[in-house]
Amino acid sequence: MSRHRLLVTGASGYLGAQVIAACRRQGVAVTGTGRRAGLGSAACDWVSADLCDPTSVRALVDAVRPTHLLHLAWYVEHGRFWEDPRNHDWIAASVLLAEQAAQAGCQRLIGVGTCFEYDWPEDSDCDEATTPLRPQTLYGRAKDQTRRIVQDICARHGMGFAWARIFYPYGGNEAPGRLVPSLAQALLRGAPAECSSGLVQRDFIEIEDVAGALLALVLTPVQGAVNIGSGTALPVHELAGRLAAQAGRSDLLRIGALPDRIGDPPRIVAKIDRLRDEVGFRPAIDLETGLARALEHWRTSP
Amino acid sequence: MSRHRLLVTGASGYLGAQVIAACRRQGVAVTGTGRRAGLGSAACDWVSADLCDPTSVRALVDAVRPTHLLHLAWYVEHGRFWEDPRNHDWIAASVLLAEQAAQAGCQRLIGVGTCFEYDWPEDSDCDEATTPLRPQTLYGRAKDQTRRIVQDICARHGMGFAWARIFYPYGGNEAPGRLVPSLAQALLRGAPAECSSGLVQRDFIEIEDVAGALLALVLTPVQGAVNIGSGTALPVHELAGRLAAQAGRSDLLRIGALPDRIGDPPRIVAKIDRLRDEVGFRPAIDLETGLARALEHWRTSP
Repeated sequence: MSRHRLLVTGASGYLGAQVIAACRRQGVAVTGTGRRAGLGSAACDWVSADLCDPTSVRALVDAVRPTHLLHLAWYVEHGRFWEDPRNHDWIAASVLLAEQAAQAGCQRLIGVGTCFEYDWPEDSDCDEATTPLRPQTLYGRAKDQTRRIVQDICARHGMGFAWARIFYPYGGNEAPGRLVPSLAQALLRGAPAECSSGLVQRDFIEIEDVAGALLALVLTPVQGAVNIGSGTALPVHELAGRLAAQAGRSDLLRIGALPDRIGDPPRIVAKIDRLRDEVGFRPAIDLETGLARALEHWRTSP
Repeated sequence: MSRHRLLVTGASGYLGAQVIAACRRQGVAVTGTGRRAGLGSAACDWVSADLCDPTSVRALVDAVRPTHLLHLAWYVEHGRFWEDPRNHDWIAASVLLAEQAAQAGCQRLIGVGTCFEYDWPEDSDCDEATTPLRPQTLYGRAKDQTRRIVQDICARHGMGFAWARIFYPYGGNEAPGRLVPSLAQALLRGAPAECSSGLVQRDFIEIEDVAGALLALVLTPVQGAVNIGSGTALPVHELAGRLAAQAGRSDLLRIGALPDRIGDPPRIVAKIDRLRDEVGFRPAIDLETGLARALEHWRTSP
């Protein structure tokens, strides 16, 4: 692995910390970057940089001279990121970073996209090659536009490129307002855990598996878009039910107490053939284990 | 016109100087910007800024608080710009500028594209609404990508947006290596003026008409892509022949002395219905006048 000089952006974030941990477990040397040190920074070489400042980007790339770049950084404030204009700043920042890295001899770039780029089919799984793209949020559009430009940059420089479309990650230190943390916190304090009907199906994947998949994608030569999900269609009410059962508080679960969201797509599920067969990665953390971890996390970090 | 605070980027360049002159003729107050003062800068308010530096962009927008923005700036070094990676820097710079301007209350943004975004039909004119886009150069792709992102930004902020696709401008202080200057200079010094067969048809438009069309586009509410051309299909050998005749040196013309470019598209011509009927602008400088001006320019600025 010493041939690699891997640089991970957004390394102090929710997912970044997990990627740094995965590198450590697999003995992959890694440099992390972010505006300030955070969760994952103690476990890696750390270079502070502001990716929205081209001078800072140039200094970062000159200092690290990465052979491999995993670009996690983006504007992701829970509840705001869908439509925030800062998404545009991150298109610009990502384009500049990719160009600088390419000029400095980087060999492979992995960008991070989202299932929200797809026009989700109602009764089948999202396929990287055949499912049309039709992002309906600013976030989804900005990610898709970034992918197109960065893919061009990589092609021009003969640099390897892959684009990880992440489905529904859960677990770890995710934002407290998200589904699993909000249910877990209610259950743990003995309050009613309120849900919508939960009939929609989603593809949940534990955050450690997301990190493992991303690192596998860095280390293989697979090109283009790759879905990162479990490949399993899980009704949201079933996730809630299993979480409540694990907490021993099925009595607190209130399925249907919250209204369903109008127009919520019935199914957002990944086809994971590329991840499994080409990247050679299989999600390893089953739902029971993942939900147990999440409960444990919120029990100990209230 | 005092309601407008028009900011023109790239104002020290070849086209910028013409736009500043057009503003002056029409009594439109204008602020120009560029890294350094140049041709047009004495004729307008001038603010120096480096658009590739976000801090500089913010300071520029705060200082000018434009209501209208005409964004001409790009990397355009003759012969190099087609495939230079700096095209990517200008995607990023343009996205940041548009976002900053929108947040500062700008009401209308005009971006500058190119006929090289189109998949040129062989026997008809390029139409903004129906001709497919298929840019075959990095420059063309970068412009097209910029248009998509900036159009999104404008739509989100309720800001007016138009995208000027410029065809074959000539005249004024254009780069000496381009077609008209290179022929004019040869004819004026009594050297053979060598051309290819010149059978391909192009849409030439004098640079002062380009500037006039852009200013008209700033001042009307027309939305989306607008071709800027003459609407006339002119075989290149005919342009060369008329230039030589005007110079009184048809004897020096060597049509066919240079090889044709392999794969050179037979026809790149604009449909200008939108420019004429919606923007209300008609190119006014006919080829005789334009070529006479070009000869005069190269006679006096060798």
